[in-house]
Amino acid sequence: MKVMVVGASGTIGRAVVENLSRDHDILRVGKTQGDLQVDLTNEASVTRLFAQSGKVDAIIATTGSVHFGPLAEMSSAQFDKGLQDKLMGQVRLVLIGQHYLKPGGSFTLTTGILTQHPIRTGVNATAVNAALEGFVLAAANELQGQRINAVSPTVVTEALDKYGSFFSGFESAAADRVALAYRRSLEGIDNGKVYRVW
Amino acid sequence: MKVMVVGASGTIGRAVVENLSRDHDILRVGKTQGDLQVDLTNEASVTRLFAQSGKVDAIIATTGSVHFGPLAEMSSAQFDKGLQDKLMGQVRLVLIGQHYLKPGGSFTLTTGILTQHPIRTGVNATAVNAALEGFVLAAANELQGQRINAVSPTVVTEALDKYGSFFSGFESAAADRVALAYRRSLEGIDNGKVYRVW
Repeated sequence: MKVMVVGASGTIGRAVVENLSRDHDILRVGKTQGDLQVDLTNEASVTRLFAQSGKVDAIIATTGSVHFGPLAEMSSAQFDKGLQDKLMGQVRLVLIGQHYLKPGGSFTLTTGILTQHPIRTGVNATAVNAALEGFVLAAANELQGQRINAVSPTVVTEALDKYGSFFSGFESAAADRVALAYRRSLEGIDNGKVYRVW
Repeated sequence: MKVMVVGASGTIGRAVVENLSRDHDILRVGKTQGDLQVDLTNEASVTRLFAQSGKVDAIIATTGSVHFGPLAEMSSAQFDKGLQDKLMGQVRLVLIGQHYLKPGGSFTLTTGILTQHPIRTGVNATAVNAALEGFVLAAANELQGQRINAVSPTVVTEALDKYGSFFSGFESAAADRVALAYRRSLEGIDNGKVYRVW
């Protein structure tokens, strides 16, 4: 299959590409790296991405950032920044991408363990991830002959240096284990499912 | 208690005001009606609201609109409009309002049955409501000595004329029954809870 991976140079994205490239044709997409570049917060950039890629069999997003900070000091602008990046970015990829995804094709988005297990300073992350899981649940019923799922990883072992202090006491998962869930979404028959890797 | 109700002139808001005004001091807030006016999508307007209201014992939001339309035709701008109104509006009320809510005070937000039960054309509603439920779950852990809950109503009986065709086969709930859940959040000890009235 021709599989587009947006966020291909990230920790999870690299593991997904490594796993899937064994038997699929991968189109690596990144902000500044990869075969093609995109800024998911920019409508014209996403339209241009698909004009360049043409039709694909699957679209995987392993990208998006959110705001971390204490609720007591959080501004609306900070909260909205996370909405615009991780949530609206992946949603935009689906809204535009649905017209470039072949019949029988699948979307796989990325949420995270914080949906159900909030951490200190993580209010924006929990809200964004929960919205994405709702989006997947609802979009699955409306897509005609296409599927959509999400992967919800716990903190990734390879990212513990950077994020470990946020996830005190959480068990991590190795990126290659998280990557399995993307393959399961891609090659399986599930629709509207969130694969929790935790 | 001095209870601010934002959306006081709506179908649910009126029922909440009727119920709570029996034994509480209600500050009715609306876009164009009520004791005070606010536009929750506007940062300065919310700041002004609290400058006018002063400290309150409870803040209830029964307001917010989302985009309804087929996923196949939905634009990013339409999706974002729902995010900015029902989601960002209620979040902004909490982010600013937390500094005007007395110790021991409570927030009660409004989500809806579409969080768990998507309908045709309701992708935006499901995502927005899910985000709000995530926000409540996470914010409950961070608020210091204040509580936050949400009410998730099914379609309200009094609104069946307007929304009934969207909710084909759904059981409705009378607005005065939905109002009970707001009282329960206000006077109870729950924190981070979503009261499903369905």
